[in-house]
Amino acid sequence: MRIGLDMMGGDYAPAEAVKGVQLFLDSVATDAHLVLIGDEQALTPLLSGAKLDQSRYTVVHSSQVIGMNEHPTKALKEKPQSSISIGFYLLQNKKIDAFISAGNTGAMMVGAIYSIKLIEGVQRPTISTILPRENGTLGLLLDVGINADCKPENLVQFAILGSLYSQYIMGTSAPKVGLLNIGEEEGKGNLLAQATYPLLKENPLLNFIGNVEGRDIFKDTVDVIVCEGFTGNVVLKMAESFHDVAVRRNIKDEYFNRFDFEQYGGTPVLGVAEPVIIGHGISGARAFSNMINLAKQMIESKLLDKIKESFVVTNES
Amino acid sequence: MRIGLDMMGGDYAPAEAVKGVQLFLDSVATDAHLVLIGDEQALTPLLSGAKLDQSRYTVVHSSQVIGMNEHPTKALKEKPQSSISIGFYLLQNKKIDAFISAGNTGAMMVGAIYSIKLIEGVQRPTISTILPRENGTLGLLLDVGINADCKPENLVQFAILGSLYSQYIMGTSAPKVGLLNIGEEEGKGNLLAQATYPLLKENPLLNFIGNVEGRDIFKDTVDVIVCEGFTGNVVLKMAESFHDVAVRRNIKDEYFNRFDFEQYGGTPVLGVAEPVIIGHGISGARAFSNMINLAKQMIESKLLDKIKESFVVTNES
Repeated sequence: MRIGLDMMGGDYAPAEAVKGVQLFLDSVATDAHLVLIGDEQALTPLLSGAKLDQSRYTVVHSSQVIGMNEHPTKALKEKPQSSISIGFYLLQNKKIDAFISAGNTGAMMVGAIYSIKLIEGVQRPTISTILPRENGTLGLLLDVGINADCKPENLVQFAILGSLYSQYIMGTSAPKVGLLNIGEEEGKGNLLAQATYPLLKENPLLNFIGNVEGRDIFKDTVDVIVCEGFTGNVVLKMAESFHDVAVRRNIKDEYFNRFDFEQYGGTPVLGVAEPVIIGHGISGARAFSNMINLAKQMIESKLLDKIKESFVVTNES
Repeated sequence: MRIGLDMMGGDYAPAEAVKGVQLFLDSVATDAHLVLIGDEQALTPLLSGAKLDQSRYTVVHSSQVIGMNEHPTKALKEKPQSSISIGFYLLQNKKIDAFISAGNTGAMMVGAIYSIKLIEGVQRPTISTILPRENGTLGLLLDVGINADCKPENLVQFAILGSLYSQYIMGTSAPKVGLLNIGEEEGKGNLLAQATYPLLKENPLLNFIGNVEGRDIFKDTVDVIVCEGFTGNVVLKMAESFHDVAVRRNIKDEYFNRFDFEQYGGTPVLGVAEPVIIGHGISGARAFSNMINLAKQMIESKLLDKIKESFVVTNES
């Protein structure tokens, strides 16, 4: 198993990326080999300083970096030697089994869609967020921002992708799916929600429970919540801001601590044909380590094979 | 000034409604006369027990009640002697200057729209929520649920209605308006947000600042945030649930306390031609008192005249 990591992506790269690699290698028992993509000159002293087992990683030099605010398509085109471009090249050519970056999100999305392609049957890839719940369990909300306008069929596909992720990565059996809405009964909501409800209800791949409301997002009523990326993104950023408030006001609470979304690492881009993980720009060592571990789990669980099988079934049904 | 109050609406009516009347009369210096609409038999002992100055109120008997889960249009039609039906009758016939109820929200909306009518030029009425901010000020978010699907022009109207409310009721001069979105720059967001941005920017009645994101909702970046009612409703219910969590987890914090939305009373139905205020079903004495006070402010400030003037200007421009 070879996991590729963009060492130049994120606000604190490459230092935090190196620390993340160290944390992962120290804490996770695995024979995964890490392919560290970045500026060799910048990486070498940091990697030496970290005293890592050199058999555990390979450095692949990249001479360019795509900045956080660069135009994704333009940057990918003009910077073929960037760490993100090289990462996707390696993933496309099966030199690595997963690719992780906390760099330019747009470039990661464009690279994932155009160089890796979507799984057959998937209309749109999706990104998600973990939802901490008071009872200690974790839920999943998707989409959280890359699909601002959706059709009902998109939400159904997100529900399938989220269910498989919840089952194979988060360990939830028969994950309960809810539709984010503004009322409990079928028939409530905006036109999208009204049209999506019956499709979720009739889909044999889903354990659909019904509508959930804003007040249910952090409850354990359901395991997977689907919505379009506009509302999902507002929910995620609002939850992050509540955590910021709690920190700023010095509120010490075990549950509120778990709203530190950084600890969950990044989000997989579900729906693309290889494991791709996108991190927050502010990723620190723990986030990098968690993302490497997530890549490992995605490979080991054969999540993408399960997704491919589900979408074949969906298409035939 | 005569303020009409549905004494039978809400989970704790009429007892909490009577306590709210008492709290209002004890705490607010005003010559407002209260018109208390409800079952005389139920009200008389409660009002006597509260030892209120009888010159301050009149009881109008209603023999029917619209339940919280009744179908709005059907209930209004079949129960002309209900407290809500009578309230709208009195408001329509200028016997009262404002009508308040914590009862069936749908029936309140239908009554407001069909018996009171919209202000000329207003396409849709809107409901809002107060946003507590860390620096002690209050923001306003609208729509929070009755307009699940919106056109760009609807959001522009909500922005105008919200700005006037912020200015004349909340005391903010030249309220800053933000568009709830999932990116900061113009051009970001879903199709609705993309189309709404330029309309807000060019509208001479608005002090439009630009996009705000989920993380900005409880900041004082802007005074009025506009969005369609789907996202707004999710935001409001999620914020309420955070307060519930804080209470449940015994987190004592002055700011989090202010997320007890009940304390703000109800929301005005902005856009209708007379002051109509809808309360939460769970309204207690303080919420009732605050709603009566809000009705008083809406009448005293001549908010609806300001709205009428603004919409005349809008139409002519």
